[in-house]
Parts: sequence; C-alpha cells; structure tokens
Amino acid sequence: MPQEVGTSSAPAESRPARFLLEVLRGIAQVDFMPSALCGAVFLAALFASGWRYGLYGLLGAAVATATAHALGIDHALVGAGLRGFNGCLIGTGFAVFLGPAHLSTFLLTLFGSSLVVVVTSALAIMLGTWNVPTFTMPFCLVTSVMTVGAPGLEKAWHGAHGLAALPVPASGATALSWQQTWHAFFGNFGQIFFMPQWYVGLMFLVGIALANRLAAAMACLGSVTGLVVAVLLGSPAEGVSQGLMGYNAVLVAMALCGVFVAPSAWSVAYAIGGAGAATVLTSAFDSFVGPFGGRTFTWPFVLTAVLFVAAVPSIPRLRRT
Amino acid sequence: MPQEVGTSSAPAESRPARFLLEVLRGIAQVDFMPSALCGAVFLAALFASGWRYGLYGLLGAAVATATAHALGIDHALVGAGLRGFNGCLIGTGFAVFLGPAHLSTFLLTLFGSSLVVVVTSALAIMLGTWNVPTFTMPFCLVTSVMTVGAPGLEKAWHGAHGLAALPVPASGATALSWQQTWHAFFGNFGQIFFMPQWYVGLMFLVGIALANRLAAAMACLGSVTGLVVAVLLGSPAEGVSQGLMGYNAVLVAMALCGVFVAPSAWSVAYAIGGAGAATVLTSAFDSFVGPFGGRTFTWPFVLTAVLFVAAVPSIPRLRRT
Amino acid sequence: MPQEVGTSSAPAESRPARFLLEVLRGIAQVDFMPSALCGAVFLAALFASGWRYGLYGLLGAAVATATAHALGIDHALVGAGLRGFNGCLIGTGFAVFLGPAHLSTFLLTLFGSSLVVVVTSALAIMLGTWNVPTFTMPFCLVTSVMTVGAPGLEKAWHGAHGLAALPVPASGATALSWQQTWHAFFGNFGQIFFMPQWYVGLMFLVGIALANRLAAAMACLGSVTGLVVAVLLGSPAEGVSQGLMGYNAVLVAMALCGVFVAPSAWSVAYAIGGAGAATVLTSAFDSFVGPFGGRTFTWPFVLTAVLFVAAVPSIPRLRRT
Repeated sequence: MPQEVGTSSAPAESRPARFLLEVLRGIAQVDFMPSALCGAVFLAALFASGWRYGLYGLLGAAVATATAHALGIDHALVGAGLRGFNGCLIGTGFAVFLGPAHLSTFLLTLFGSSLVVVVTSALAIMLGTWNVPTFTMPFCLVTSVMTVGAPGLEKAWHGAHGLAALPVPASGATALSWQQTWHAFFGNFGQIFFMPQWYVGLMFLVGIALANRLAAAMACLGSVTGLVVAVLLGSPAEGVSQGLMGYNAVLVAMALCGVFVAPSAWSVAYAIGGAGAATVLTSAFDSFVGPFGGRTFTWPFVLTAVLFVAAVPSIPRLRRT
Repeated sequence: MPQEVGTSSAPAESRPARFLLEVLRGIAQVDFMPSALCGAVFLAALFASGWRYGLYGLLGAAVATATAHALGIDHALVGAGLRGFNGCLIGTGFAVFLGPAHLSTFLLTLFGSSLVVVVTSALAIMLGTWNVPTFTMPFCLVTSVMTVGAPGLEKAWHGAHGLAALPVPASGATALSWQQTWHAFFGNFGQIFFMPQWYVGLMFLVGIALANRLAAAMACLGSVTGLVVAVLLGSPAEGVSQGLMGYNAVLVAMALCGVFVAPSAWSVAYAIGGAGAATVLTSAFDSFVGPFGGRTFTWPFVLTAVLFVAAVPSIPRLRRT
Repeated sequence: MPQEVGTSSAPAESRPARFLLEVLRGIAQVDFMPSALCGAVFLAALFASGWRYGLYGLLGAAVATATAHALGIDHALVGAGLRGFNGCLIGTGFAVFLGPAHLSTFLLTLFGSSLVVVVTSALAIMLGTWNVPTFTMPFCLVTSVMTVGAPGLEKAWHGAHGLAALPVPASGATALSWQQTWHAFFGNFGQIFFMPQWYVGLMFLVGIALANRLAAAMACLGSVTGLVVAVLLGSPAEGVSQGLMGYNAVLVAMALCGVFVAPSAWSVAYAIGGAGAATVLTSAFDSFVGPFGGRTFTWPFVLTAVLFVAAVPSIPRLRRT
C-alpha cells in the first residue's frame, strides 16, 4: 500500500498529534488511502452510523498502532497507517457482531486489535515472498475466529441463537427498484465497514475522493460492476440493496487499477474482471461459511486480490505500481 | 508439465491451424499430454458422452487459450496447451453441473474460462517457489466457487434443490460384481472429465496411450490402486463402479511416475502410495464439501500431488523429471 | 526444533539400540524434546492410559522413523526424532478415534505413519521458505483426512453414527470446582496425546521437566493461560476439566518462549498472548469442523504457532533461537 515516507520525522508535530495522525491514516488505509483527512471523514461516517461504532473503530486503530510501536515495528509502516487499519476493522466488527455494550466485547477488542499486529507481520512476510500485500486478511482471520468461536464461549456470546445453518437456494425478488439501486450503489462503500446505510456509504466515498480522485472513480466502477453482476445473476434484491453483494467488488476494483497495478486501459479491464469474480465469490463464501456460523467479511476481496496481484508479473499487459 | 518448445515457430502452420493445435493440446493437458492427437481423441470422447459436453469443453479450452494470447502470456506455455486445460475442464464442468442448455451457463463459461488464466498465472508463481506445478487447482478453485455460489444466484441456478447436506456414514453393498469392477476401472479415466460411462473412459485411456505408453501404464496402475483401496476400505459399490473413487488416483499415479518424478522402481512405489492416499482423501473431501454444497472435483489429486511433488528434493531415492 | 547433532555417529550404540533411541526421541518431540528419556516417560504415560494406546504410539513412531531411513532422509533429522513424532500421534490418534481392536485400524496406521513422512518433507520445504517449522501439521492433515473420510468407508468405520452436526451455542455450567480446576491443569498436558486423565497429564509434565526445566515452566504457564482464558470467556466446565480447551495453549507457550523464540520477558508475554489466541481458536475450530464431522486436534496450536514464529523477524523485541 502506498506509504507516506518521512511523516515520522516532521519536527513540528507533537507526539500525541503524530500518533493521532497515524491512527487516522490507519482508518483511511481500510480503503488504501494513506491520508489523515480521509481517515477523519471515515471516522465521522462511523459515528454517523452509531457513536459506539465510531468509538470502537477508533479504539481498535489506536490499540493496533500503539501495539506496533511497542513491538518496535518499522516506523514508516506504522506512520502510514499500515498497522492500524486491521485494528480499526476489528474494533468496528467486534462491536457490530458481538454487541458494543458488553464488557467482554471491549476486552476482546483490546486483545484482538493488539493480536492482529502479529498476524499482519506474519502474513506480510509470507505473502511478501510474491510481493503481494496482506490486504485485510489479518482482520478477516482474527474476526472470523472470534465470531465463529464466540457461540462456544458463554461470556463472549450474548445472542439467543447461533448462526450455523445449511445454505439453501436463494428465493425472493431479484428486480431492483430505483431506490434499491442507488441504495445498493452507496451501500457497497459502507459495507466495507459493515454499515448498510446509503448516507454512511456516501460519506466513505467522499473520504476516498478527498484523498485520491482515481481511487474514487475506481471505487464507483467497482460498485457498479458488483451491482450489475449481482442483478444479472439474480441475487435477491434485499441483500443487494444493502450493499452485501458489492463491497468486495469496490475494494478489488480500487486495488487492481491505481493502488497495486499501474493505471491503464488494460488494468481497468482487469479491475472489472476481478470485481465480477469477487461478486460470484461473495455468493460462494456466504454458502461456505453458513454451516459453521461464519461470516463472509472481506474474504472474497482478499482472495481475489491476492491472486490478481500475484499474477501481474506473468501478464505483460500489466505492471505493478 | 512437459512443454513442446518451438511449436509456435513452425513456419508451415497457418494461424488458425496453430491455434487449433494449441486448443487440442490444451484438452490433452488435462491428463498431462502435450499432444494434439491425444486431445482430438479426448474431444471425441467428450462428444461421445454428449455433443453439448464436447462443445463446452472445446469452447472453454479455446477461450482460455485465446485469453492467454491476448494477455501476452509466454508463447511456449500457451503453445504446449498449458493455459488451455483448465478452461476445458471449466467448460465441461459448468455444462455438467449448471446445465448446458442455459444462456447463463454459456456466459459464465466465457467468463470463467478467461478468468482461470489469471488464476493459473498467480498459482504458477506462488507454487513455483517450490518448483511445484499448479495441476488442476485453477479449475478446482473456479469451478468450486461457481458451483457453491450458484444456488445463491437465481439466474445461474436452475436446480429445484441445493446440494448442501450433512454427511452420514456410508451404507449399502460394498462387494463389486465383475461388471461393476471393469466399469470402475474405465470409469476412473472418464470421471477426470466428470463422465461415468465405461466406453468414454476407455476412449480417454486410448488417447493417453497414443501419446505416451508409460503414462497409460501408470494411469492403469492408478486406476487399479484406487479400485483396490476403495474395495478394501468398504466404499459403497455404486459410486466405485462409476469411477467416483478412483479418478484422483489415476492422475496422482501418472504425475508421480513419469510426468513430474523420474521413472524408477521407487517412483512406482511412490505413485502407488500417493494413489492410495488420494483415494482416502476423496472420501474425506466428499464429507468436507457436503455441508456447503460443494463437489470434490480433482481437489484430492491436486492436494496429494502438490505435497508429493514438493517433497521430492528431500527424498534421495527420488528425483524430478 | 532443536536437533541433537552427532547422535548417529556414537560408535558404542548397536543399530537396534540406536533405532530405539530415535523412536523414543520421536515420541518426545511431540512436545519438542529431543530426549530419549523424556520419550520413555511419555511412552509410559500412554501405557498408563491404556496398553493399546502405548503400542499404537510406539508403532507409529517406529514406522515413521523406519520409513524416513528407507527413503534416505537426512540422518540428523531422523536421529533427533524429527521424523517420528507425527507418526506417534497418528498411531495413538487412529487407535483413539478409529478403535484400536480392528485390523483396519492397524493397517491404516501402518499406511498413515509411513505416508506422514512424505507430508512432513513437503511441508518442511514449503514452510522452510519462511524459516517456520512444520509443528504437528503433518499429523493434523493425515489424521483429519482419515477421521473425516472414515465414515464413508464401511470397513474403516466401526461407529454406529457419524459425528457431523451443526454447532450450537454452548450451554451448561461454566464455574469450575477446585477438583475440575486441577484436573484441567494436568489434562491440558494429556490432551496433546488425546488423553483426559489428570495422572496421565502429570506424567507428560514430568517427562518434559526431566528434559528441560524452562520448557516445563512454559508448559505450566501455557496451561494456566488456557485455563484462565477459557474460564473468563465462559467455556463449559465439562470440557475445560478434561483439558480440551488448554492443550493448544500449552504447546504454543512452549514454542514461543524457549523452543523457537529466545527466552526473554518479551517472549514470555508473546507466549501468553499466543496461548490466549490459541484458546479462542480452539473454540472456533470446534465449530468449524462440526458440520463435516472433523476434530480439532492440534490445528489451533499449529496455525497460531506458524503465524507467531513467522512474524518474529519483523518484531525487533524478539529473536529466533
């Protein structure tokens, strides 16, 4: 992910101010943006969805960033927000899926968002063999383990029921109304942070646009691709309108044109292909995780992006950024 | 996989003829054979099973080969059929498991068999770290995602029911009649392409034998090994006689003696051991994929072969081809 | 894992005696100890749990060690017991989960414990890319495949029912009595070999302590960590008291302070964090494997340890042994 080199040597910033900037960049890096301004807008979007989600997201990013400093991890990485974004997602995700009002959720967030720094370091070394970044795989791993494990732990799980169920073929209306269509378009940005509201999604898009115009354009293209593929293949309208079929496509499209692959007509096509693949993979993942009560999270994005970025050196039409 | 170097520089072939040869080699490479003659026999076998399956297999191989050329991928690889065989399996597989007579199946085959070229490139780079080929893993990935995701997509899935079910212990007769025995022996070749008919399997064996005698002998040994292990362990006769317990053993045996490991008495034993392991793994995979409605495909072959080929440098009794 | 170099050149030992020492070291290496004395105590513990389990453990370790020699694998590795310990676990595990009194179990143990040598060689090469050991992953792979595949094979499976079931949220008492508490503390050592009895666990701890005091101390710290995390998160008391929630924590704690990471205050904290993570992962794995009838084995230890050991080069506070 793009790094802001030299940020940590800026003499004018006090230590707390520098840490705050790192945390905000961590929140922005969920969408690949090394920009504190973008992170501030993202944080506002989380608060707009619910003040507790904002606090948990901030907490997770701050704990992960502080843990990375305590472990002595490379300052340039931490300064660019690259050790904070998985923590932000863990904080928000634990709040959404375990319930924000429980002491257990708070303590598990502290643990999970420090633990993820180790997981990120390990995956960065392993995937680094092929010059592939870790994307949000560390978050996906930690949050999948936590949410799948929680129902077996009576003081971590406060739901009446578990989630485990065999998948059944989809039914229900697949045609989208105009309102469902534009709700889906914006929901695809919000669901990256688990939020279904169209206006929260819009705020995320604004945040991206403030940091990087190309990234915002690719995010829109990804959202449209996910939407079109979901409608053509007949995904039920209810889920599509909440952004559940398109958030992986948004991230894939950004990653494959501009962030990790150099922009070109070929990489735009590559991004569209990847976004379509991630949309089908989202449906497959929903079935795969059903029987053991898991959730799809951004696994479809991560797996698609790992393969599509790893393949670039073999494809003369494309090159890495 | 063995490459035919220099095929693309043969001056006498016209471009369409050269492309046709590449596509036929792609069909043959499903069983590791870089031979257009073998591919033609395989294609005839697919048509013998059903003309639509033949067309879909040809379509998938052609789309994948053309996509590889469009992306500028190494001519020697594409020329030897090494970017076509996963496409062939995707075409046939989509036809068998999604139904050949739907427009959605046709369009998804176009998408899937071009997508698989990217997946193959990525896996070739990643597994190349250990000098291990990708086998049919790209096909297994793409087709697993498509078949598991399809029931959630109302316009891609035309079955009345889903496939998801908890596995239950096997019951039913395990003793094979003489007819079931020889049907199983040939079915083990046909099921590599999802075809249960004994005469289709025989045609595949003939295709292999025309290209490489040792490979045909090892395929037979693998088929017998899978059959014997399945009977000794008590796999129900119904599935065994359709080739469902032995097709992975056939591929493993070919891969481990002659194709990727140099022929010797030791590698014959290694191939038998691997074929036996793949047979047990086939039963395990059937249970593993049950709850989420997946299918076993050639995953047992792929996983066994990855490990057995990766191990070779540590085993002084064996060496790579 | 620590190797005893030069053991194979000791002139005074006869060949059978040397082989016996290698087999005993193989049994000890389940807990990372390259000590024949420790292995002898472990073997006594297995016999204390049931004479058949002792015989199967010995058989598995002997077959794996002999297979490694037959394949010509590096003498230093085999001499230190590093090609025997997965065989020992396979022998004991097959006896426990397939039933020790069946001919099929005996024959499958012979096959599985020779096969695992190939799997270990492959994984050692692959994980060696990142200087990460294979831990008990080869055992976990082979035994998972065997136990998941067995119910589909009528002559390998002698249970009336399969194990596949959707996971449901935990219920039942979570407060531990004093007796349950100390049973859990010792059971956490015994469950590494699938044994729930407290006195068997105590014998394993004695074996570790005879070989390495630091390792025994870290094993105790891991057991306490697993116990505390399980109780705080509300894991049902019944399973905790049998050691089912803490055996992975024991292995992680040993691995991360002393065995693969140099001892220090930081690595003690690292080991506690890893042990806590492995405990949550144990609950998640129990749910994950439920629908297809799998078992958790030491997968949570393996996955946690792979990540925590791989991360070390990125963490300046820690260094490898």
